[in-house]
Amino acid sequence: MSRNIILVDPLPRTLDLIMTPDVRRRLAQLGEVVVREDRQMPAEQVEALLPDTVLIFGQTDMPKERLDRAPRLKAIINVESNFLPNIDYQACVERGIWVITPASAFASPVAEAALGMAIDLARGITKADRQSRAGAEEYGLAGNDETFRFSGAPVGLIGFGDLGRQLRDLIRPFRNTVRVFDPWLPAEIVERLDCTPASLDEVLCESRVVFVFAGVTSENEGFIGRREFAMMQPGSAFLLMSRAAVVDFPAMLDAVRSGHIRAATDVFPDEPVAPDDPVRKVEGLLLSAHRTGGTRDAFYALGSMAVADAELIMKGLPPQLCRRADPATANRLRSKPVSVS
Amino acid sequence: MSRNIILVDPLPRTLDLIMTPDVRRRLAQLGEVVVREDRQMPAEQVEALLPDTVLIFGQTDMPKERLDRAPRLKAIINVESNFLPNIDYQACVERGIWVITPASAFASPVAEAALGMAIDLARGITKADRQSRAGAEEYGLAGNDETFRFSGAPVGLIGFGDLGRQLRDLIRPFRNTVRVFDPWLPAEIVERLDCTPASLDEVLCESRVVFVFAGVTSENEGFIGRREFAMMQPGSAFLLMSRAAVVDFPAMLDAVRSGHIRAATDVFPDEPVAPDDPVRKVEGLLLSAHRTGGTRDAFYALGSMAVADAELIMKGLPPQLCRRADPATANRLRSKPVSVS
Amino acid sequence: MSRNIILVDPLPRTLDLIMTPDVRRRLAQLGEVVVREDRQMPAEQVEALLPDTVLIFGQTDMPKERLDRAPRLKAIINVESNFLPNIDYQACVERGIWVITPASAFASPVAEAALGMAIDLARGITKADRQSRAGAEEYGLAGNDETFRFSGAPVGLIGFGDLGRQLRDLIRPFRNTVRVFDPWLPAEIVERLDCTPASLDEVLCESRVVFVFAGVTSENEGFIGRREFAMMQPGSAFLLMSRAAVVDFPAMLDAVRSGHIRAATDVFPDEPVAPDDPVRKVEGLLLSAHRTGGTRDAFYALGSMAVADAELIMKGLPPQLCRRADPATANRLRSKPVSVS
Amino acid sequence: MSRNIILVDPLPRTLDLIMTPDVRRRLAQLGEVVVREDRQMPAEQVEALLPDTVLIFGQTDMPKERLDRAPRLKAIINVESNFLPNIDYQACVERGIWVITPASAFASPVAEAALGMAIDLARGITKADRQSRAGAEEYGLAGNDETFRFSGAPVGLIGFGDLGRQLRDLIRPFRNTVRVFDPWLPAEIVERLDCTPASLDEVLCESRVVFVFAGVTSENEGFIGRREFAMMQPGSAFLLMSRAAVVDFPAMLDAVRSGHIRAATDVFPDEPVAPDDPVRKVEGLLLSAHRTGGTRDAFYALGSMAVADAELIMKGLPPQLCRRADPATANRLRSKPVSVS
Repeated sequence: MSRNIILVDPLPRTLDLIMTPDVRRRLAQLGEVVVREDRQMPAEQVEALLPDTVLIFGQTDMPKERLDRAPRLKAIINVESNFLPNIDYQACVERGIWVITPASAFASPVAEAALGMAIDLARGITKADRQSRAGAEEYGLAGNDETFRFSGAPVGLIGFGDLGRQLRDLIRPFRNTVRVFDPWLPAEIVERLDCTPASLDEVLCESRVVFVFAGVTSENEGFIGRREFAMMQPGSAFLLMSRAAVVDFPAMLDAVRSGHIRAATDVFPDEPVAPDDPVRKVEGLLLSAHRTGGTRDAFYALGSMAVADAELIMKGLPPQLCRRADPATANRLRSKPVSVS
Repeated sequence: MSRNIILVDPLPRTLDLIMTPDVRRRLAQLGEVVVREDRQMPAEQVEALLPDTVLIFGQTDMPKERLDRAPRLKAIINVESNFLPNIDYQACVERGIWVITPASAFASPVAEAALGMAIDLARGITKADRQSRAGAEEYGLAGNDETFRFSGAPVGLIGFGDLGRQLRDLIRPFRNTVRVFDPWLPAEIVERLDCTPASLDEVLCESRVVFVFAGVTSENEGFIGRREFAMMQPGSAFLLMSRAAVVDFPAMLDAVRSGHIRAATDVFPDEPVAPDDPVRKVEGLLLSAHRTGGTRDAFYALGSMAVADAELIMKGLPPQLCRRADPATANRLRSKPVSVS
Repeated sequence: MSRNIILVDPLPRTLDLIMTPDVRRRLAQLGEVVVREDRQMPAEQVEALLPDTVLIFGQTDMPKERLDRAPRLKAIINVESNFLPNIDYQACVERGIWVITPASAFASPVAEAALGMAIDLARGITKADRQSRAGAEEYGLAGNDETFRFSGAPVGLIGFGDLGRQLRDLIRPFRNTVRVFDPWLPAEIVERLDCTPASLDEVLCESRVVFVFAGVTSENEGFIGRREFAMMQPGSAFLLMSRAAVVDFPAMLDAVRSGHIRAATDVFPDEPVAPDDPVRKVEGLLLSAHRTGGTRDAFYALGSMAVADAELIMKGLPPQLCRRADPATANRLRSKPVSVS
Repeated sequence: MSRNIILVDPLPRTLDLIMTPDVRRRLAQLGEVVVREDRQMPAEQVEALLPDTVLIFGQTDMPKERLDRAPRLKAIINVESNFLPNIDYQACVERGIWVITPASAFASPVAEAALGMAIDLARGITKADRQSRAGAEEYGLAGNDETFRFSGAPVGLIGFGDLGRQLRDLIRPFRNTVRVFDPWLPAEIVERLDCTPASLDEVLCESRVVFVFAGVTSENEGFIGRREFAMMQPGSAFLLMSRAAVVDFPAMLDAVRSGHIRAATDVFPDEPVAPDDPVRKVEGLLLSAHRTGGTRDAFYALGSMAVADAELIMKGLPPQLCRRADPATANRLRSKPVSVS
């Protein structure tokens, strides 16, 4: 009787990072787990396993020739969360091999932090703490001179995937008008969640708080630049939560330095940020070192979503939690792979 | 025909602070408005107006003798938001004179800031910003070493009046278990809002985030002290949003300094805080200079709620927005009057 | 040492009707319970108990003379749910005696049934069942000829007390625009619950579904009459859930008979309805025999709310669950006492 | 330059049934619309159009040979809402041809009616109307003898696709515990919507109201039979909203006739139901002639969802609103095609 190999090649993740013991046990019930975590699994080992491999967890190169040698393969589950161009997506589709990723695992912690940062910018929380530490605080109304209420403030979302929708749910009690710019979506999706579809310019002009959740594609690099920041309302807040490459970063810093807007960013063009990078000194900028998504629970969610979908796939059912790679769109994505977790 | 005097004696507020022009126009339609804002209205002027006064907006002393001389008085509307012992509450009740205050105007901005601060403490937002500024940031999972998710964390509320209930509504999307300690309320009120009635000890032991919204009474000064802080879970968050006097402040600072808990406070035993007060240097404490409630919109809400209820009262209807002074409980309250707005 | 008498004179209720054994035990802990349920408590017995009575549960006559003989009385808790003119409300207020009623116990079951009836009228549920039984059903789109979606239909509420607010909460997922007519309330109360304050005429003209939750006062008997029904949109739904006397009942029946509107009613000018009352034959009218409020859980809620507030009152705290009688408005109410439960 | 043909072969639907003029205009902007509605499009006409066809709206047979002759085809959009075995799904997948259907258009009206019917069964609305018409009504508590509150009643859902999830959202304000049986889904999906994953037996034993939303597959015909009905709580409610074939229909009727449960059904083994079918006389059964989904707005939603996704597909983007046919599962479905709309 043939073996069912589960090939686990998860770098830059490790199994301990993404799976609790309980989830690892569920994984083991699906087949014979072969893990390589010290480095990417060597070609030799991959080749030896392919004939009996039913599931791949990881970012292993899978060109057509390898797929040819893996006749029993049912799914490739990317646990890094960005689809890379090292898989023949079309060949997978033709053979009914699922290529999926539990990327939405990061949406919940990022959305939570984004709301915290938005309230911070609106109400001046970090700033007031800094002032109190410096002995320069002001009380009551005077202490609210440049603040605004997040409740009821017009909100704009740029990008309305998992992240944007999770944020939308978190802010429901604040009763904001929410405008959404997402050229990949029909108006219906936006309206069902009580938002208004809008152009990029409308989002920028009409909102007091703008959240950027858009991924990078071959078409949208730097699409928020000087012209766009100029369009924003004076004193409004801009939160960059997804990818640094979608904005003209120097233009954003200038808009903040000039006092035109305030901003928060969780991402930077180059990470780690250089020790002497002047971004570290910008007043009015709330700095976060690409850390809003990487919480322990999010890494565990990566693993539990991956295993839950693997269980369905092994029963012949479609996955329900992970995102599927559509060959047509996978090729448009331009995220850098992460090098640290 | 007799005049309907509306006696306005609003210090430390002013009419411009609490009423937009539109609301002021509505006030003027209720009678002849007599305002004294440069100082508290002098006794002479008060006495002269009493016979024709139908409404008082302010904190004027109203002992029985003055009530006797104000036969047409329908309501005393405190616009400072704390009931003071300068009114004969029982006599007012007997004569059907409403004594009310739009205190809940401050609940919405405080609750919003409290949520922002709670996410800040849980996710390390202010701290991470400080680290990035100091060149000491950490990325990804390493940057989340001492953080926890606010989503799903057990929450405890001490005090469940307007403030606690507003916060409860704001955090619904985060799906926390919420325990409530409020000895003035029946279990039903707590349960209707999907919270669990609990003792003070249970709230402290079982919660990861504790919000204090309790007012000060003659019975609860300093009721959260060393014993109570020791009971809290290591690494949990404590937010003091209502009155400094309900906690043993030095004990709170010690619990934070020792690293046992993290905390945020909007109130201090003495305000303004002395320039050299060591509180300014406590790591792990998020400082806010009694400024979470005093937003422009909150002051305007004071005025619009006061006028809306005055309109009802002048039609012979009960007020709907302001809180009524119950003689029995008014006497237990021990809030200091504010000296600045 | 003096006794603490709890005088229970609950007709037309009985203690078993309104209290589970558990709640009865809580009642017994408050004092010495003296119950008379076979008939209204005789004057002689009342008089004997008054000197030691601390709480009255029931509808006992309490003129000033009796209050004079009950120096320790803290509260009169009406368990029938309508304030009657047999109490000296002003004297109670002067003495700090709470007069309260757990009337809102009925709001939840009535609101639930009102939503069920509204969906029934909109979607033709009862009617389709009748057609299927008669062999006259139609399938698919043909079976929806005269139906409309409750989801998204403009809703109007006449009266926005406990009942209206509970319904408002129940229909949130349906995303209706909700207009509210309630002359006793300021706009703020209506707007906070995401409704629009409106005149009676606007509610009638603009809504597809109109719910009547208004109580009867000396001023509003029959205020919804021929003119008002004519104003409604053809094919719209009218639900009379509170008191028959607020509408011109024959005018309502004519509007239904003519096919102009469809309606549901839980109340009738005379109850029980006469066997030959033509109301029983009106097509397009959904009939309910004053039964939407009187569920077992609602009667038990009457008792548990009453006891929970009594517990607070005995501790010197204000009641939180029951409605207070305001002397000014108590006199405007004109509800008939119920004769059966 | 080549033409872009949009082949419309929509029977049993028609374009007027599913598209408002506005949506039709959007369709016309995507290409040259060729419609055949008097009968299924004849083979000759289909063959002539295939070389230039970019989109098919309808249920046209599309075996491999036809796909070979349609090199520019991007999508087949089923507007009837059930995938049929007349398409070579695997060939479509290999060529990147989307096969999709806006089936979820019917979920909203069905869920709304399901809630109305559930409240009807719980509170006895239709039954009380019948009793009032027959002069046999009872008032107040007596009129609630066999009723229960939908609020708070344990609810069970069998099937948790679009329909089950929409119902789940509609009932949130009622605060039910919701158990879900759906063997195609991982626990995470169920738990995210605040429900509890459960076995079929648990759902039946523990719920007071059971909704059936499951589709028919080759594996589940008649899976709710005598054993399952016997397991239900006496007096509980059973609502069959999806497909008659998933239950043993005679067993269901027996369970209702015996008084063990009450039920509502929108579907029947044979439709239209025969004039003398005894189902028409079952007391305790709420009858609906397969009419809860077929509202005018639902048909229009079919069309607007189809066109919105066609617009995305023509831009090279993935569809967002319609459900995709997965070859593996499409073959398991066993729905009868509808013959009337």
